[in-house]
Amino acid sequence: MTTPLRLGIAGLGTVGVGVVRIVQTHADMLAARTGRAISISAVSARTRDKDRGVDLSAYAWEDDPVALAKREDVDLFVELMGGSDGPAKAATEAALAAGKPVVTANKAMLAIHGQALAELAESTGAALRFEAAVAGGIPCIKALTEGLAANEITRVSGVMNGTCNYILTRMEASGKPYDEIFAEADALGFLEADPTLDVGGIDAGHKLALLSAIAFGTQVDFEGVQLQGIQEVSIDDIHRARDMGYRIKLLGEARRTEAGVEQSMRPTLVPADSPLGQLEGGTNMVVIEGDSVGQIVLRGAGAGEGPTASAVMGDVADIARGLDIPPFGQPAATLAPAQRANSATECAHYLRLSLTDTPGALARVATVLGQNGISIDRMRQYDHPGEDAPVLIVTHPCAPSALATALEGVTATGVVTADPIALQIQTP
Amino acid sequence: MTTPLRLGIAGLGTVGVGVVRIVQTHADMLAARTGRAISISAVSARTRDKDRGVDLSAYAWEDDPVALAKREDVDLFVELMGGSDGPAKAATEAALAAGKPVVTANKAMLAIHGQALAELAESTGAALRFEAAVAGGIPCIKALTEGLAANEITRVSGVMNGTCNYILTRMEASGKPYDEIFAEADALGFLEADPTLDVGGIDAGHKLALLSAIAFGTQVDFEGVQLQGIQEVSIDDIHRARDMGYRIKLLGEARRTEAGVEQSMRPTLVPADSPLGQLEGGTNMVVIEGDSVGQIVLRGAGAGEGPTASAVMGDVADIARGLDIPPFGQPAATLAPAQRANSATECAHYLRLSLTDTPGALARVATVLGQNGISIDRMRQYDHPGEDAPVLIVTHPCAPSALATALEGVTATGVVTADPIALQIQTP
Repeated sequence: MTTPLRLGIAGLGTVGVGVVRIVQTHADMLAARTGRAISISAVSARTRDKDRGVDLSAYAWEDDPVALAKREDVDLFVELMGGSDGPAKAATEAALAAGKPVVTANKAMLAIHGQALAELAESTGAALRFEAAVAGGIPCIKALTEGLAANEITRVSGVMNGTCNYILTRMEASGKPYDEIFAEADALGFLEADPTLDVGGIDAGHKLALLSAIAFGTQVDFEGVQLQGIQEVSIDDIHRARDMGYRIKLLGEARRTEAGVEQSMRPTLVPADSPLGQLEGGTNMVVIEGDSVGQIVLRGAGAGEGPTASAVMGDVADIARGLDIPPFGQPAATLAPAQRANSATECAHYLRLSLTDTPGALARVATVLGQNGISIDRMRQYDHPGEDAPVLIVTHPCAPSALATALEGVTATGVVTADPIALQIQTP
Repeated sequence: MTTPLRLGIAGLGTVGVGVVRIVQTHADMLAARTGRAISISAVSARTRDKDRGVDLSAYAWEDDPVALAKREDVDLFVELMGGSDGPAKAATEAALAAGKPVVTANKAMLAIHGQALAELAESTGAALRFEAAVAGGIPCIKALTEGLAANEITRVSGVMNGTCNYILTRMEASGKPYDEIFAEADALGFLEADPTLDVGGIDAGHKLALLSAIAFGTQVDFEGVQLQGIQEVSIDDIHRARDMGYRIKLLGEARRTEAGVEQSMRPTLVPADSPLGQLEGGTNMVVIEGDSVGQIVLRGAGAGEGPTASAVMGDVADIARGLDIPPFGQPAATLAPAQRANSATECAHYLRLSLTDTPGALARVATVLGQNGISIDRMRQYDHPGEDAPVLIVTHPCAPSALATALEGVTATGVVTADPIALQIQTP
């Protein structure tokens, strides 16, 4: 047995406490599996005096995470503070600059500064690992970078934000509108401090950008993710989707095409009886498609103390075992800038329109869609107590860009009373 | 870039050809990801003159796989011959003895000789990896040994034999009896030379024994797997299960309990709308449960050229990157002999009995079951054109051992005309 691996943990929220708990309860098992004792030297958090349910008395305390990262008795820095910049980034950089490995669950920091941090890590020979940043306990980054390393990856997709999935499945189960369930999730503490990170698809977009970079060997390009949040999804949309055999999921998809890399995170109709359609609550699912392996589906808890701490400690175990793989699976210098491509893959769309209750309004919409090459599969006008006439349209497969142009034309007719809602229907 | 990693491949069947194809078509990608050029020096197979659809002219040929393993220009030996003993084992031992890493897809060899081979590998410092031996392209061994290394694993289960799943799903879809679909699968080349390996659950049992050893840190104990094949599953069983909302799957399960390790591979009724219940054809699914991570589900193709070659090459990539983890995730010397425990977990059972068509036969069966503490949830007697009266019983949860005793009693009554068929109904 070699020397122990001594951790410094910055951030003692849910995940940090979970990591402490694993180190404390599974010391023998970890040593047996990794060949090294894993211990904790020091910890850091915003508030020192707080009962976190674990005994921290044996560890040194640092108010400053940068000082923690630089401590002589810290061999590996575990960053669990969150935030794309500020102390998390400063401390991560300090550790890497000192040649110390870093394990983090910080998707925002990696999605925005991933390339620079990977370059820094590789320049000092320090490992930088972030399995916990994507899909909680599911070892999907490991699957992509290692298990499927011999595949040319063609597509990565999935449901990667448990909070959004919770809101959508709760809306369906309860029949309550978005605002009410949003408030419920907020009261339960499920939402980020800035809830737009969750419901706006930003958090899930960060995760997708990381998987996409690893899958396609490009520099992480969060700005290239086409984002659409779930705020516009109404309970009526959910019911209508269900009537047609679909459920609405915040679905991420990264695809490599001739034109470049398409990345999108948006509410999407998926078949209700498909694995994605059956996902309930906070469960995540990542679907990886490779040229040799075909399709691999990974499912598990997307958040929470245990699952996320499991992923953090999986990375710690890898480092204890001496695993040495570049953060994005290949050297940062070989990662090409992502060539952004707009989604050109044709798919059917679900449209919700609100029309003025005037004769011929529906006909004008249908005409404009037709003139733009959008062919209608189904169209239905609903009862309407008020002034506006709600109309549901399902299109035949069409290019998203063609649909966008057509919808501009529809809006220009003046017969719509609100911006049209367009959701993609998943291509199998 | 360091020196190239030169492979010697023994066995040029479907998987071997798949491996050659990946090395030939993805040389640049593999080098970028692993930091080493991966090449092939020499190959070996039973027949030299055969068009395998790939160009082997650049590689040296060896008739003897042992000689191949020992070649100076072979750094890594890829064993794809199969068979638990004979040339596969001899060549694997020769490579490991020479300190050369080995990658194999050979579940039978590992399930039977895994402990000895791991000890040999560790004694010379050579890697021995076998991701392709279990569940085709699904990186489940990597998930267990690495991604979930910080978890105490409580249960591993799944569907791990594509051929059996093909037969069972084909029977259901076609309504044809077992014998007919078996012949169909045979004609399609889906069956092993000795079909009992597949339909008797042996092949799947080998895989389960490997996962179980890794999950629980015990020596691999294939003999400890309670095996029941699918040969006794009739088309009527499949229909009746479906009527009750179940499908029949050859389900493997390894559990750690107070008493020891329970391992079983048997046809089991699973809810039709569960992820396991929805598995079609040759797809495999592995479900891992750990104390921190909760439940992780992995799904993918369980066999075939691409998926299996993907797993082989994932292992090769790991070795190219210098990954050094003991074959079973912790040093072979620390693996305890598996303490076998009979399945004591109570579960509901599906029973098919054939009774003499005499008054009171059913009552006697019910009485004997009751006397043995087996409580009946549902019982149904079917129309019977012949002499024997088919009876279907679903029990309330009971210990498998209690049921076995009860069924002996039922048989002793003399009112049954054939051995009772008992299938477990999956505990959630």
